[in-house]
Amino acid sequence: MASEAPVTVFYGTFVDLPRVKPGENHELAIHHGALWVSSATGRIEGLDWSISSEEQLARLFKLNGWSDRVKIVRAREEANEFFFPGFIDTHIHAPQYPNSGLFGSSTLLDWLKTYTFPLESSMENLSTAQTAYNTVISRTLANGTTFASYFATIHVGATNLLATLCHARGQRALIGRVCMDNPDTCPSYYRDSDAAQSLAATRENIAHIRALDPEGRLVKPVITPRFAPSCTVDVLSGLGSLAGEHDPPLHIQTHISENKDEVELVKSLFPGFDSYAGVYEACSLLTRRTILAHAVHLTAGEMELIASRSSGVSHCPASNSALGSGIAPVRELLDKGVTVGLGTDVSGGYSPSILEATRQACLVSRLLKHATPSTSEDAGMGKGREVLSVEEALYLATRGGAAVVDMADDLGGFELGMLFDVQLIRLGSAVSSPDAVQQRGATTSSASESVVDIFGWESWREKVHKWVWTGNDRNVRSVWVGGVLVHSLDCGLERGNSLVGILAELAGGGGWWKWIAGGVGIGALGWVLGRRRIL
Amino acid sequence: MASEAPVTVFYGTFVDLPRVKPGENHELAIHHGALWVSSATGRIEGLDWSISSEEQLARLFKLNGWSDRVKIVRAREEANEFFFPGFIDTHIHAPQYPNSGLFGSSTLLDWLKTYTFPLESSMENLSTAQTAYNTVISRTLANGTTFASYFATIHVGATNLLATLCHARGQRALIGRVCMDNPDTCPSYYRDSDAAQSLAATRENIAHIRALDPEGRLVKPVITPRFAPSCTVDVLSGLGSLAGEHDPPLHIQTHISENKDEVELVKSLFPGFDSYAGVYEACSLLTRRTILAHAVHLTAGEMELIASRSSGVSHCPASNSALGSGIAPVRELLDKGVTVGLGTDVSGGYSPSILEATRQACLVSRLLKHATPSTSEDAGMGKGREVLSVEEALYLATRGGAAVVDMADDLGGFELGMLFDVQLIRLGSAVSSPDAVQQRGATTSSASESVVDIFGWESWREKVHKWVWTGNDRNVRSVWVGGVLVHSLDCGLERGNSLVGILAELAGGGGWWKWIAGGVGIGALGWVLGRRRIL
Repeated sequence: MASEAPVTVFYGTFVDLPRVKPGENHELAIHHGALWVSSATGRIEGLDWSISSEEQLARLFKLNGWSDRVKIVRAREEANEFFFPGFIDTHIHAPQYPNSGLFGSSTLLDWLKTYTFPLESSMENLSTAQTAYNTVISRTLANGTTFASYFATIHVGATNLLATLCHARGQRALIGRVCMDNPDTCPSYYRDSDAAQSLAATRENIAHIRALDPEGRLVKPVITPRFAPSCTVDVLSGLGSLAGEHDPPLHIQTHISENKDEVELVKSLFPGFDSYAGVYEACSLLTRRTILAHAVHLTAGEMELIASRSSGVSHCPASNSALGSGIAPVRELLDKGVTVGLGTDVSGGYSPSILEATRQACLVSRLLKHATPSTSEDAGMGKGREVLSVEEALYLATRGGAAVVDMADDLGGFELGMLFDVQLIRLGSAVSSPDAVQQRGATTSSASESVVDIFGWESWREKVHKWVWTGNDRNVRSVWVGGVLVHSLDCGLERGNSLVGILAELAGGGGWWKWIAGGVGIGALGWVLGRRRIL
Repeated sequence: MASEAPVTVFYGTFVDLPRVKPGENHELAIHHGALWVSSATGRIEGLDWSISSEEQLARLFKLNGWSDRVKIVRAREEANEFFFPGFIDTHIHAPQYPNSGLFGSSTLLDWLKTYTFPLESSMENLSTAQTAYNTVISRTLANGTTFASYFATIHVGATNLLATLCHARGQRALIGRVCMDNPDTCPSYYRDSDAAQSLAATRENIAHIRALDPEGRLVKPVITPRFAPSCTVDVLSGLGSLAGEHDPPLHIQTHISENKDEVELVKSLFPGFDSYAGVYEACSLLTRRTILAHAVHLTAGEMELIASRSSGVSHCPASNSALGSGIAPVRELLDKGVTVGLGTDVSGGYSPSILEATRQACLVSRLLKHATPSTSEDAGMGKGREVLSVEEALYLATRGGAAVVDMADDLGGFELGMLFDVQLIRLGSAVSSPDAVQQRGATTSSASESVVDIFGWESWREKVHKWVWTGNDRNVRSVWVGGVLVHSLDCGLERGNSLVGILAELAGGGGWWKWIAGGVGIGALGWVLGRRRIL
């Protein structure tokens, strides 16, 4: 480690979604310049948006006294590359991943019984769990998800394994052992035997995660009652107390008001409480570190309660459409001051991609005016105000999620001191000539290329819109978490560059310079990967 | 051509959606066996679902007297490959493709003015058109679209070019020169000068397509009034007459009731007509060869009129959500006897993929119960009957589309005499071990691999569901139209096999046999591609 360079420099176009004041529209910020990340902390140590040439970059190196061991990672303009904050998936069920795409025409409660509980139960086998969890981590990283808030299962062993794998693979994560102890609603083959056992098993899981990552730099526990219908009041209130025992209090995640039948079920199961949110409130489960998934059918009063507790909502549009749950009124939630992020809700949601969730958030918001009248009396609602712009949906996918997981100052943008959890997006070179089109015509192998077609006349804003609507994991070329490279589709040759490369370019040097620079790049990449043991 | 083998043999798993009687549910048909396609006609000449081994395949060759020049194309079980009917895109605007993903938060009428008319107008430049059209043909073929019903622009030259390109690239297509002559609704820079000019230009385009493909084996003209608001009654009725002059009558395509404001506009522009569909009916534009795109806001009476004329509807769910147009009541349309297929509606729809349209058709049907009450009084509606199953959506994507383009006996399934317009889907080998997962872990290049994760326990039905919900163009390994290979992600080595290969396998032959077989395969592939001049 003695030879580690103090920083890595990232150079090119950076796109993020700045915070806005209430009432202002979200707009993309497009920066061109250089940003450097501390190797020690994984945080953004400096940035300079005035750097616009290789000469200026060389001056920056000189000014900072950086040696040729300092790597430069470039977003190449000609390939329409840009850095974008890593996506934050605020709601995903890791054990359900093998069922992605399997739900038939079912709705929530029958889907749980038919598809979900049997699969989750099978994770007791650690080999089964390892396959599922490694796959879902690979897929989410490949889709640019740098932070995931995972539901695991009731099994301590498999839940611990998920934490270990995330930690080893370098994905930032909350890991939750699922608590569900109500014998009237949970299947006999898959439930906690009682509240005491549920709480004890949860403590075991917390202890494992604390041992694995004492400072919670990458992986933290999250208190995870499945949802009110699966839990007794004893477990709910026990978990609320458990979260509060810690300092800072533990994160909490659960579901709320996903489906109308579920809302009715909660009414019948908890007759003494005035609402679904009220059940959680009474059990001390509504905190500023609480993630409530779905929130499709909340009353205005529940929204106000949730906002008053600073709890967050995970909006899962793909899942809500796939299971026919409905359309969450995101604008109303935001108007009432509720913090909102996006979730894939794998496998109620069929896709592990937050880009897909971003698209779906836009789509369903455009259908909202055709849905049953909302609880809001705002006259603008249903007349366009309910529509989420691409920019707003991307904000939810990054800063919104960061706020929901109570890391708004650490994640979601390119600001000094923030963690460098970032994806490098490549849209590919422009379709500038018939020849270029011809090359990827009927007979060539184009599987590894981007499916986003850039024609050359697009503004950066338009390029980002094309990415959101037509892009996929093929556009995610590299992903860093805390400055550490955790996923890459490239070999590193063209990317792992250094001052040697700059000098070569400045000198107009010949081909052999590039080979040297490339060699340095390979070594550096190998070192970065070596830093974190990849399972 | 003298050396051409009489047939090509396809061997492995074949999946399609058989026709069903009213009231029956759509189910997948999963066949394992061999099917052979006539080189002369491009049609399925024979099939045998009892062939289940290499020995039986060899016997089939002997029985038919096929020489070693007869190629075998295999769907490999271990890679979860299967043949599936090519997709039929019943509604796509070729010139709008470069705008895919660009529509902001606009709705239909402002989207046309802001985004669409300027881009369509630019296609007057043939170089611009060639780039756009080659790209959209590549992308649709790569997504398994073997038949597309294209709207072009008002320009005869560019529309002719689109026909020429489809013909050269081997995509089956309807090509429509767009007619729009109403000076009150069309921009001055992009409209036909009057009805006479509009009709004359249309005749010119028809003449070009007839000269290109006299028998209409691959490419046919389609009469294309943009939609009622863009057209005078003179042009609408002139086009209706023009379609009827031909024997058989020409295909017709237009839009209907996509957006509520558009419906109101038609009411105000055509006060003498009793409905939107009534305008088309009065102008002889509702025929069994008519494709009506969208049909989101039809009255029950209009649905009945359309059904009585055997006209078809192109359901474009991605577009209808993206532009906030609404949710088409597909079940009601089907109940009333209307023929329905799927359309991408690029670029109101953001994706050139009918697989995406299939997903979106499923999704929006699951939201329909939350939308404003439908015109139907059927008690089952809103209680689940309105939901489209994956199987039903796939039916619409294949046989439904075939019926909409009046080719139900030629396209959409694996039946004797049907045209071999087919895609070979590869889901990839199963994620069977932690090792396999590891191999495509964080640091490897997995861009060319399938993103559909098969774990090994799935039934064929479940595999197909996973494909629909999580697949993309990477799964489309090869595409044939009329038996001609028009797209492939593979080099042909492992696929272009022949009896030599079989004999080698039967004999347990060594590696050198495979090289010979491979050589034959490459030659055969080259020949197939050479048959059709690729631009």
